[in-house]
Amino acid sequence: MSDEKVIIIGAGLAGSLLSIYLAKRGIEVEVYEARADMRNVEMSAGRSINLALSDRGIKALSEVGMDEYMLREAVPMYGRLVHDAEGNTNLLPYSGREGEYINSVSRGGLNIALIDEADKHPESRFFFEQRCVDFDCRSGEALIFNEKNGDEYRVSGSTVIATDGAGSAVRRAMLRGGVRRFNYSQEFLEHGYKELSIPPGDGGAFRMEKNALHIWARRSFMMIALPNFDGSYTCTLFLAHKGENSFESIDTGSYSGGSPGNALITFFEDQFPDAIPMIGNLEREYFTNPTGDLGTIKCFPWNAGDRALLLGDSAHAVVPFYGQGMNASFEDCRIFNELIDEFGTDWLKVFEKYSELRKVNTDAIADMAVENFYEMRDAVADPVFVRKRELETKLEQRYPDYFSKYSMVTFREDLPYSEAMRRGNAQDRILMEICAGEADVSKIDTAKVLERLRSLG
Amino acid sequence: MSDEKVIIIGAGLAGSLLSIYLAKRGIEVEVYEARADMRNVEMSAGRSINLALSDRGIKALSEVGMDEYMLREAVPMYGRLVHDAEGNTNLLPYSGREGEYINSVSRGGLNIALIDEADKHPESRFFFEQRCVDFDCRSGEALIFNEKNGDEYRVSGSTVIATDGAGSAVRRAMLRGGVRRFNYSQEFLEHGYKELSIPPGDGGAFRMEKNALHIWARRSFMMIALPNFDGSYTCTLFLAHKGENSFESIDTGSYSGGSPGNALITFFEDQFPDAIPMIGNLEREYFTNPTGDLGTIKCFPWNAGDRALLLGDSAHAVVPFYGQGMNASFEDCRIFNELIDEFGTDWLKVFEKYSELRKVNTDAIADMAVENFYEMRDAVADPVFVRKRELETKLEQRYPDYFSKYSMVTFREDLPYSEAMRRGNAQDRILMEICAGEADVSKIDTAKVLERLRSLG
Repeated sequence: MSDEKVIIIGAGLAGSLLSIYLAKRGIEVEVYEARADMRNVEMSAGRSINLALSDRGIKALSEVGMDEYMLREAVPMYGRLVHDAEGNTNLLPYSGREGEYINSVSRGGLNIALIDEADKHPESRFFFEQRCVDFDCRSGEALIFNEKNGDEYRVSGSTVIATDGAGSAVRRAMLRGGVRRFNYSQEFLEHGYKELSIPPGDGGAFRMEKNALHIWARRSFMMIALPNFDGSYTCTLFLAHKGENSFESIDTGSYSGGSPGNALITFFEDQFPDAIPMIGNLEREYFTNPTGDLGTIKCFPWNAGDRALLLGDSAHAVVPFYGQGMNASFEDCRIFNELIDEFGTDWLKVFEKYSELRKVNTDAIADMAVENFYEMRDAVADPVFVRKRELETKLEQRYPDYFSKYSMVTFREDLPYSEAMRRGNAQDRILMEICAGEADVSKIDTAKVLERLRSLG
Repeated sequence: MSDEKVIIIGAGLAGSLLSIYLAKRGIEVEVYEARADMRNVEMSAGRSINLALSDRGIKALSEVGMDEYMLREAVPMYGRLVHDAEGNTNLLPYSGREGEYINSVSRGGLNIALIDEADKHPESRFFFEQRCVDFDCRSGEALIFNEKNGDEYRVSGSTVIATDGAGSAVRRAMLRGGVRRFNYSQEFLEHGYKELSIPPGDGGAFRMEKNALHIWARRSFMMIALPNFDGSYTCTLFLAHKGENSFESIDTGSYSGGSPGNALITFFEDQFPDAIPMIGNLEREYFTNPTGDLGTIKCFPWNAGDRALLLGDSAHAVVPFYGQGMNASFEDCRIFNELIDEFGTDWLKVFEKYSELRKVNTDAIADMAVENFYEMRDAVADPVFVRKRELETKLEQRYPDYFSKYSMVTFREDLPYSEAMRRGNAQDRILMEICAGEADVSKIDTAKVLERLRSLG
């Protein structure tokens, strides 16, 4: 064991994984988590029940020996299954290659598995219901509120890693003047989200295609559904907060000119008729579950000297539309761990190099996630885009070394996000141009297309 | 008198002007200001002593009858006087038209004049050393700390207008959760600033050209100097905080490899040799005056229902490089006042329309101000840019209806900033292209150029 002690704030996905990485190195870790131990309590319903795990996340999990365990409980999703307003469906594969798919995993299940794994190491200790409420950027002390008895106390160690999520108390202290010239932005979409559920069918049967991410894309709004291991689906409805076809238009009943309940049913009948019979209790779930906000948070620097580092959502909260939030945070942990190989526990050097390497990439995935919202919402209902996906799938089937932007982001854990974005955007401009000019994809000469794409470098 | 009472937070330039506008309408105004009454105390040295007043600001001042009074104490500046490293100078006029110039005014003098003017109205009352420390976005109450006796108390009225600047306590309350989905960004330049002074010559003589804004542009950094009414100049040195030619390189002595004092003198001898004999006591001023940060703040929405509105720097702090910070805030007051004509004291309607009208324009000036930093620092030392300014001056002399981007921003108070930016950028692309291809401006056919520019619409 080294004589280092690292304080981790937050035992969510990033904090739990990071604690394993550090404990495996023999570094003592104390993890302070605001909520109760999720192994003993029910998860709160209505919020991000499942998540898409893909290659960047899997790579990190595999480094700590957690990949196979997790994938046993994951549901592979091979593509987007698009539902139109008449209930017709069409599968758009994520890749033209075998073995490239994303995985629907339970957030709670994965988090518990990570905490259980960390608990196997004596170096790692978890303290639940201990909420970090403030951080002193000069002394490096975190102020912890004991949710059980109301006490407050300070903790410190060799350094503090803040994995306390989008609402990070450590970041708030940096913003409030703890770090001079702290660049910060929080930007919300006009759309919010609400989770609804489709229970399993008889005998735990899946009531729709099991191995797909379902999308009801309606241009100015959409609903998606991800399968769960038990045969259920978690749906997420993305609507504007205000205006036409909005949460407000349902909540006030203005959508149908009747009661809110009436507006809700009419809206679903108009837009998602095939989903109504599957959703358990639409009215109760809709009016019980909270409406969440969707925002992007960026900031820089991420560290307060060698005393604290923001990692995961605390440094870069992203909207969920690329399915990369968790994967990016797991990649954070992997890169962070690699830098300890290089710099040991010279935390200032680790933090500075980590920030330099990661910032450009987390900015890239943040921007791509916002763009993908528009792609999922509008473009999967746009014939040119549908042809482009078809062409990309053909290219991937015929030319194993061709990767679409989506594939580079999702399946190429060896490529940084920024590089995937740069190459992907250049490819997309050409492919959209080609597909706008040709209504029949079978007439497109894929060899020629590939030549043009390769010339991009 | 109406039965409205408006609480204004901050008696700076925007708050003071707004209090006049409202008092003239018979609306009762209470202005709470954190600092002491500047009419009774010395201004703190070393920070933005003078400012550039131009047509947008003058228009608002004229509406409250303050334009002539102020301009009596202003020093007109007809152009940028560029100093090279050998001490040679070259004047780049701001406009080719008569009567288009900017004015160097004393921040303190103008602020006092505005407070004095407001004090003539019984409707307006000022409370000094009363610091707003918090705001309740639900109740509309401001929490005020009495700097004199340490008491805290709450004030409220029909509504609150927060003109409490870049560090606004009201905006902080909105950000902390007072306004849901509050979009916010603060972004700092890598450069900071430090003020230095050139005292008057014998008998109050100006020691350089009086009627110009002086610039020592050195690509990665620069110094400027604005004349004051008493024959002195206020210089502002803009340097990167770190790296080569930075505050740090002087402060640590690494610039010359000697002491900090040595590094400072060597730096000035290398870069601004003609300024050294004029600056009063370079070493004392440099090491006594603080180094300031330069940041842009944007946020939205600007209002908390009908209970509070951010106006001026609290809503949109900009970097100083277009000389428009004060002018933009004065324009804020003018537009706000116009909307009371339209909506009376229906504050929610006023706030929403005001925000809709102003946001796009304050975003535009914020972005142009950052761009102009690079223009002033790099471009005035770039031959293509110098030719472009020469060509623009000729165009403005020959064609009275041609306006450069700078002129539209600075002298066309009838054009919104966003429109000035749009038209100006389109013009600039063409002019830079023309001047890159022709080293002799006299050979350029201005009639043809104008035709191309007009076709932009």
